Amino acid sequence: MSNTWGETIRVTLFGESHGTGIGAVIDGLPPGIAIDWERVKKEMARRAPGSSPLATPRREKDSFTVLSGYFNGYTTGTPLAMEIRNENQHSRDYGELKSKMRPGHADYTGYVKYHGYNDYRGGGHFSGRITAPLTFAGAIARQVLEKEGVYVGAHALEVHGIPDRSFNPMGEDRQVLESLDSMRLPVLDREAGQAMEAQILTAQKAGDSTGGIVECILCGLPAGLGDPFFDSLESCMAHMMFSIPAVKGLEFGDGFRFSRLYGSQANDAMHYHDGRVESLSNHNGGLLGGITSGAPVLFRTVVKPTASIGKRQHTVDIEKKEDTLLSVGGRHDPCIVPRAIPVIENAAALVVLDRLLTDRRLSYGK
Amino acid sequence: MSNTWGETIRVTLFGESHGTGIGAVIDGLPPGIAIDWERVKKEMARRAPGSSPLATPRREKDSFTVLSGYFNGYTTGTPLAMEIRNENQHSRDYGELKSKMRPGHADYTGYVKYHGYNDYRGGGHFSGRITAPLTFAGAIARQVLEKEGVYVGAHALEVHGIPDRSFNPMGEDRQVLESLDSMRLPVLDREAGQAMEAQILTAQKAGDSTGGIVECILCGLPAGLGDPFFDSLESCMAHMMFSIPAVKGLEFGDGFRFSRLYGSQANDAMHYHDGRVESLSNHNGGLLGGITSGAPVLFRTVVKPTASIGKRQHTVDIEKKEDTLLSVGGRHDPCIVPRAIPVIENAAALVVLDRLLTDRRLSYGK
Amino acid sequence: MSNTWGETIRVTLFGESHGTGIGAVIDGLPPGIAIDWERVKKEMARRAPGSSPLATPRREKDSFTVLSGYFNGYTTGTPLAMEIRNENQHSRDYGELKSKMRPGHADYTGYVKYHGYNDYRGGGHFSGRITAPLTFAGAIARQVLEKEGVYVGAHALEVHGIPDRSFNPMGEDRQVLESLDSMRLPVLDREAGQAMEAQILTAQKAGDSTGGIVECILCGLPAGLGDPFFDSLESCMAHMMFSIPAVKGLEFGDGFRFSRLYGSQANDAMHYHDGRVESLSNHNGGLLGGITSGAPVLFRTVVKPTASIGKRQHTVDIEKKEDTLLSVGGRHDPCIVPRAIPVIENAAALVVLDRLLTDRRLSYGK
Amino acid sequence: MSNTWGETIRVTLFGESHGTGIGAVIDGLPPGIAIDWERVKKEMARRAPGSSPLATPRREKDSFTVLSGYFNGYTTGTPLAMEIRNENQHSRDYGELKSKMRPGHADYTGYVKYHGYNDYRGGGHFSGRITAPLTFAGAIARQVLEKEGVYVGAHALEVHGIPDRSFNPMGEDRQVLESLDSMRLPVLDREAGQAMEAQILTAQKAGDSTGGIVECILCGLPAGLGDPFFDSLESCMAHMMFSIPAVKGLEFGDGFRFSRLYGSQANDAMHYHDGRVESLSNHNGGLLGGITSGAPVLFRTVVKPTASIGKRQHTVDIEKKEDTLLSVGGRHDPCIVPRAIPVIENAAALVVLDRLLTDRRLSYGK
Repeated sequence: MSNTWGETIRVTLFGESHGTGIGAVIDGLPPGIAIDWERVKKEMARRAPGSSPLATPRREKDSFTVLSGYFNGYTTGTPLAMEIRNENQHSRDYGELKSKMRPGHADYTGYVKYHGYNDYRGGGHFSGRITAPLTFAGAIARQVLEKEGVYVGAHALEVHGIPDRSFNPMGEDRQVLESLDSMRLPVLDREAGQAMEAQILTAQKAGDSTGGIVECILCGLPAGLGDPFFDSLESCMAHMMFSIPAVKGLEFGDGFRFSRLYGSQANDAMHYHDGRVESLSNHNGGLLGGITSGAPVLFRTVVKPTASIGKRQHTVDIEKKEDTLLSVGGRHDPCIVPRAIPVIENAAALVVLDRLLTDRRLSYGK
Repeated sequence: MSNTWGETIRVTLFGESHGTGIGAVIDGLPPGIAIDWERVKKEMARRAPGSSPLATPRREKDSFTVLSGYFNGYTTGTPLAMEIRNENQHSRDYGELKSKMRPGHADYTGYVKYHGYNDYRGGGHFSGRITAPLTFAGAIARQVLEKEGVYVGAHALEVHGIPDRSFNPMGEDRQVLESLDSMRLPVLDREAGQAMEAQILTAQKAGDSTGGIVECILCGLPAGLGDPFFDSLESCMAHMMFSIPAVKGLEFGDGFRFSRLYGSQANDAMHYHDGRVESLSNHNGGLLGGITSGAPVLFRTVVKPTASIGKRQHTVDIEKKEDTLLSVGGRHDPCIVPRAIPVIENAAALVVLDRLLTDRRLSYGK
Repeated sequence: MSNTWGETIRVTLFGESHGTGIGAVIDGLPPGIAIDWERVKKEMARRAPGSSPLATPRREKDSFTVLSGYFNGYTTGTPLAMEIRNENQHSRDYGELKSKMRPGHADYTGYVKYHGYNDYRGGGHFSGRITAPLTFAGAIARQVLEKEGVYVGAHALEVHGIPDRSFNPMGEDRQVLESLDSMRLPVLDREAGQAMEAQILTAQKAGDSTGGIVECILCGLPAGLGDPFFDSLESCMAHMMFSIPAVKGLEFGDGFRFSRLYGSQANDAMHYHDGRVESLSNHNGGLLGGITSGAPVLFRTVVKPTASIGKRQHTVDIEKKEDTLLSVGGRHDPCIVPRAIPVIENAAALVVLDRLLTDRRLSYGK
Repeated sequence: MSNTWGETIRVTLFGESHGTGIGAVIDGLPPGIAIDWERVKKEMARRAPGSSPLATPRREKDSFTVLSGYFNGYTTGTPLAMEIRNENQHSRDYGELKSKMRPGHADYTGYVKYHGYNDYRGGGHFSGRITAPLTFAGAIARQVLEKEGVYVGAHALEVHGIPDRSFNPMGEDRQVLESLDSMRLPVLDREAGQAMEAQILTAQKAGDSTGGIVECILCGLPAGLGDPFFDSLESCMAHMMFSIPAVKGLEFGDGFRFSRLYGSQANDAMHYHDGRVESLSNHNGGLLGGITSGAPVLFRTVVKPTASIGKRQHTVDIEKKEDTLLSVGGRHDPCIVPRAIPVIENAAALVVLDRLLTDRRLSYGK
């Protein structure tokens, strides 16, 4: 189902970038969750534009209204619906884009799919803006996880070839993960972060954009989550991650480096520690047979460079049915990585909460 | 749903490696498909063990019985069920493995998930053997696609660091794709293939195993397939690919290389050619906004080294609750790549057929 | 999934009677549908309270805002979301009802299910008010059906033992069905309707309420819709009908009268008429093996008497944990039948449109 | 999904009456269930033909093979697959029926739906025989329920106008329910049963058939099961019941009699008894707002007269495209009620087990 996701928690997204509003309906949340709305707003603000020179100066307030499912300070167990009314949209920026298809965007593919009836303004339903209600849903999931001792964090592992250091696959301290949340470009090595920022601004001045890699870790998960085959936790996480616009690759644990390892290097030996089974390494990103091993779940996604750029590109005019040139005006992120990080973190939290509930490993709210 | 996949075509898998039988129920196939069973058997044989020195010498015949859904030479439109009875299983090989958890396998995670009730013999339901009925389902899908002019092919892009040349992202000839089908290790550059084979056999002699990368291309798809967000074709393909045991990474188009490209390098310019919109390059693997652009769909998966190796490894004995050493005996593939290739190809065909039907772009059987 | 329904069209409902708002997200509508909003409003008005002496005098305006999925006069193909902000709610009417469980209502069962976190005001998510967004969704479906020559109608077949005449199972004229839409208590025999109305008002004066039977017919459906077993059109229609609050029974065609018929009386003979196969009778309500035969689909639902009554009833106080007496104050419908009729009609239209799209019998919007 | 049912437990059915085999895949069963296979066989035998003069003398052995999901005496938690190979099928009985459409059957509707590719022999996938694997799945569910103190029973409430006494809606003794299991026509009043049997045999001698009503009760369910709206327990039960061939009506509690009751008669008063909330009556069949109240769940289905009768009927020859007469030969049940009873009972058990697991009210196997 294209706009509904989840097995026990079902998130339905709606909206177009320049329509009346966007939002989400979250069904299946247990009753009795006390939501910290300030933390939800903080996650929303991390994703929102206008907060940093690294991002588009568009100021979408992303202030939301909860319509249902929350009563007297707690979730009710019935659908929690929220909406964000669209404001400050410069639809005039998009007049030319009705017929000129932006390369790298869904303009042309959406036109074909919807037979020309799609709302083309600002990418319509394909806009990255639709990740705002997804972040909202994930921010609630994250709070539930934290009460269970599960922590999630993400950072820019690479921006245009400039690397940050990697997470320790055996786990990162909660403090480290929390410190990332307040950085406008979350990195473990602040010098790397400065070099990345400089690189982004350089590309922006050239009317261009850059891509990068986001690394995400989930610590504190119990062993036994996930299913063989079609509901492997890798499958479920991948389904979510590839839903996020601009994500074009995903790898767990050693990922594509597995291609150069021997089995004896790739396997994670196990031993007993304080009476519990533990892995001695974590090449497999905390997942074996699609199921959590108890080691941190670790994955990386690649985020392609922003498709909207000022540089002139060859494209087609779908109304005139002729070739044309296009320089995308308006206000655009020179690099999506900083804003993708909170989306990926919170979306990952949602995937994991859904599995905890589906696998009945969480008694919360009961 | 853990063992059922698909939106319009629903494939349900069942079975354990050493149980009575394995199989699939395929619901939602249109009526009136004339299946070429020899082609199905050929795809099954490509995946089956025992066919090459590169694979385990276990000889599972994988001969299947169709139980329903096929009548007078055509699919009926009702569920097509098939089973493969298990034979030639050396269950005695697995006695030790009831309690000694093989590193890199699902032995421990499955034990935890199923509270010790899982059939541990040969990996049980986690066995790569469960890809046999999936290959069966995909082999039918592939036939339907070919009648629509859609061709799929895959090759070993890399084995333990030895590279093959890449597919041309703008498309490969049907003949090239078909020639891959008859190779025991499908490659575009036969010399690279020989070097890969030598590398695999060297690892095998050392009691070890190797991993690799499989590249897959789908040519001839129409533009407009897939959905924004949760049913992006990337999400659906990823859900399937990460269901295949040993797959740990997936990238579309330029994939992780996007991290080092500028937007002006990553965008695919478009133009009119013979009155139709075409891409001038294919960095995005034929997918924009999760929807096909008409360019070939191109992706790569990384397959980790076989977890079962002869070399001694540290692990736990779950019954004695103590640390132990384990050398996995029995007959195992030194590299999964050769047998993963037909699985990936046919599974990809299944994903695409499901989308063609869901998006009502295929009138077959009506 | 408790608040999402449908296979190709997915309707997600949210909201509580006295919360901020209620609404629906409708995913899977084809692009290019030109919606007649006046007709949608008319169906909403038929269901809305305050319009007749037979219904509660509560005046819920039920004015809706479309948030997404509609652009330049047509559906876009992406989710169509709508909301109705709650107004004119007398929450004070419900103070006592926080702890005193109304007999016949979901007060106690909802309290148990949601561990006391449910919004109890006005029945919360169990309120009949949640049928407003369902009616909205159905009113769109109905318009699409009418363009395909499919007409739906419903009437009060019985109110508290007073019968109307039945629909002709071989089909009713479109004009007859349309004339029902403008009646405050739709009936075929206006005298029967007057007697029903008198009966309802008599019960109301006594602080009591009445039930009834709604008969619904769908004319113009092609043969071949539906599936054997779990997606029989009977199953799908039943799933929807039993979702509507107060519906406690459903029968197709001759329904419970089949118990007194011989096979030779119950079977519908067929013949050729103008080269097409037609039924000579319609005991089976247009459905054989769960699939439409081409004869009208005909069914009846029983609607129980409104549970909220002024008469004193024995019940429990869940906070004081003691027995108590309760006379439900506030404004309530003395009979739900008049307002259930448009809900049933439009919900039935939704079921049928979903099947037409799922079975690819409708090319609308493509 | 037409041949897969369930939220937590997913049952996928396959097979045609005269194909190679029929069966089921049951996914989502908790691990660690010790199945009493003799009880499963007993339920299968109750449904099987050939066991009584009231049923068809066809002797389908219905002996099943478990293919997967069961190991060392317990369910494994992975899909439990079973198959029944078809034997003793007199396909020659059906030659004429390839083109002559049996009135009251799915012959014509299936022909249209599947464009003539359906297996017409013995009704193919529409055959009542497909209820054998459903009964198998339900028989396992029933065992799990009984360990939780939940008991299910059903009887013939009416056959062709001859009534049995009704279940006590406040509950029936376990012994009474168990005694029904061993009767070839389960009834509470044995004299009524004898009259029903005589009536069935009379109809049979006349080349005709009879219908009836099956009443089913589930005792011992906790309060709080089910969901508002689309997963009301009524909706879920209805979805299942209308999947069973020949079922044309369903009512809960007082059902269609609600149409003649006042609210003050229809509401079930509550009181405290031994510190627990109890209903003082059970007009609502144990369900309020779609959720169990703790009172027994009580419902009735109407089963139409067997469509296959010896009497000559008018119908069409779909190949010759002309009208014809048909007397259905072969061996057929003169009344489906006796064999429908175990199907309904076990299917109801399946619905309830799925809800117990989905609502996390059952800790079995964990």
